[in-house]
Amino acid sequence: MRLITTVREMKSLARETHAQGKSLALVPTMGALHDGHLSLVRRAKRACNVVVVSIFVNPTQFGPGEDLARYPRNLEKDLSLLAPLEVGVAFAPGVADVYPAGFDSFVEPGALAAALGGASRPGHFRGVATVVLKLLNIVRPDAVCFGQKDFQQALLIRHLVEDLNLDVRLVICPIVREPDGLAKSSRNAYLSPQDRQAALALYHSLQRAQELADAGETDAGKIVEEMKRVFAAEPRIALDYAVLVNPARLEPVERVTAGCVALVAARIDATRLIDNWIIAPPGTSDEARIQLALARGREA
Amino acid sequence: MRLITTVREMKSLARETHAQGKSLALVPTMGALHDGHLSLVRRAKRACNVVVVSIFVNPTQFGPGEDLARYPRNLEKDLSLLAPLEVGVAFAPGVADVYPAGFDSFVEPGALAAALGGASRPGHFRGVATVVLKLLNIVRPDAVCFGQKDFQQALLIRHLVEDLNLDVRLVICPIVREPDGLAKSSRNAYLSPQDRQAALALYHSLQRAQELADAGETDAGKIVEEMKRVFAAEPRIALDYAVLVNPARLEPVERVTAGCVALVAARIDATRLIDNWIIAPPGTSDEARIQLALARGREA
Repeated sequence: MRLITTVREMKSLARETHAQGKSLALVPTMGALHDGHLSLVRRAKRACNVVVVSIFVNPTQFGPGEDLARYPRNLEKDLSLLAPLEVGVAFAPGVADVYPAGFDSFVEPGALAAALGGASRPGHFRGVATVVLKLLNIVRPDAVCFGQKDFQQALLIRHLVEDLNLDVRLVICPIVREPDGLAKSSRNAYLSPQDRQAALALYHSLQRAQELADAGETDAGKIVEEMKRVFAAEPRIALDYAVLVNPARLEPVERVTAGCVALVAARIDATRLIDNWIIAPPGTSDEARIQLALARGREA
Repeated sequence: MRLITTVREMKSLARETHAQGKSLALVPTMGALHDGHLSLVRRAKRACNVVVVSIFVNPTQFGPGEDLARYPRNLEKDLSLLAPLEVGVAFAPGVADVYPAGFDSFVEPGALAAALGGASRPGHFRGVATVVLKLLNIVRPDAVCFGQKDFQQALLIRHLVEDLNLDVRLVICPIVREPDGLAKSSRNAYLSPQDRQAALALYHSLQRAQELADAGETDAGKIVEEMKRVFAAEPRIALDYAVLVNPARLEPVERVTAGCVALVAARIDATRLIDNWIIAPPGTSDEARIQLALARGREA
């Protein structure tokens, strides 16, 4: 694995790789890698000849008062996790290289960015869209892999790719969970043992939504009420939102059908956690659920 | 010359061209071609093997009440002007192909867009930056040519290319003028014979600025005063701005030195005209003036 730390060198390596007729996949990360990221890397390896994992804690997607400064950074550990996967390149540029003095062009991702998480994190998705476009322009990958975990982010990137005519295949990979169901997250590292237990409310509320749908409940209002009840039973956790949406524009649905997405966000002290679950008939695989939601998102 | 009218076909032709190892230059236009555009095409031909001239009246860069509906459109005439230049491709996509339903991602070009013309045309440069990024992603040119005439636009595109890590060489070409000095513009077609005469105030005010600089005047305030006097003598014309700026951020200068840019914008009835002139010692070529201004713009 080659470690590249400058935009210039990354651009030149990407050019060489393409000139050799090899395909390139990008896995954008902010480091603090966990099994979720590693599953993206494995998926990227199946898609292309060379995999680039970018490791960059992107300042423009953090709001004032968010956890930019304390966000976990450990490049050595990240590299040691990537080594056994035989990744081609770890790309870890410096902040001043990605955002030089005078930087002043942003991508504004529109209405989708204002939905759900966007409301409580103004500017967050602008920062995400901007850095993703920059990374795509630097690495010029044939495929780019994102996790389903930030579902809003994944949808928004799909929009970006289509709206800006980008030549890249977007691959969205299923959420990887701990044995007890908690979605893997770099921010889980912030949690005390009690908080870690309380955090299960996110997964449990999503499972409750699927159970109710399995039992034939289609009234979204009633399901959301039940989801919120799960959070209400856990005093350590402050619910941000629990919703059932159509994946086209993340707008709440009235009737729950296959392909709807249950999304939750909650805070435990200063730590914000998100999770989601795509409603589908029992036995539907994680991959098939993603395709179902994406197809449904295209209809509207 | 091949006429391409869909994004899909343009993308595929661009891919083929690159696969054949040929270089590609893009000249983005809104049609209503004049000698200014044709000079860009000639420059593009010198730079690359294949030249693509895009012809697209971009709705997102027109504000409400601006001249989108009446903007001159004559594809046949444009094609006949391009034919003798042996352009490779004329790319004239439809609006719904460039901006399909649900389009919702824009490029926000920052402070530079708010300067000068930006103030009176809110959203204009957002529209320009967005369509240019889209065209660059569709055509994937090695070089892209813009005229110096919209100096603010040219600077902004340079910013965009750098900020978003685009792999394209930006070529800025000198203003082409009528024999009496009026800058060529598609909007000159709107002018009555008297208005056409009045429009010379733009060029004359810029020449006055250079004359004063040649005579040793360095006080920008005094030069701007003289520039405005030229407009004051012409009652048919309403001055929008007359300024002397540093090309880094288009901020007014106090002392005029080589590489400063005099910019003017004015209205004759509903027709808005712009022009500019890069201050330099007598005998400096148009191309050298552009390089001087760009180099100076980088210093700050």
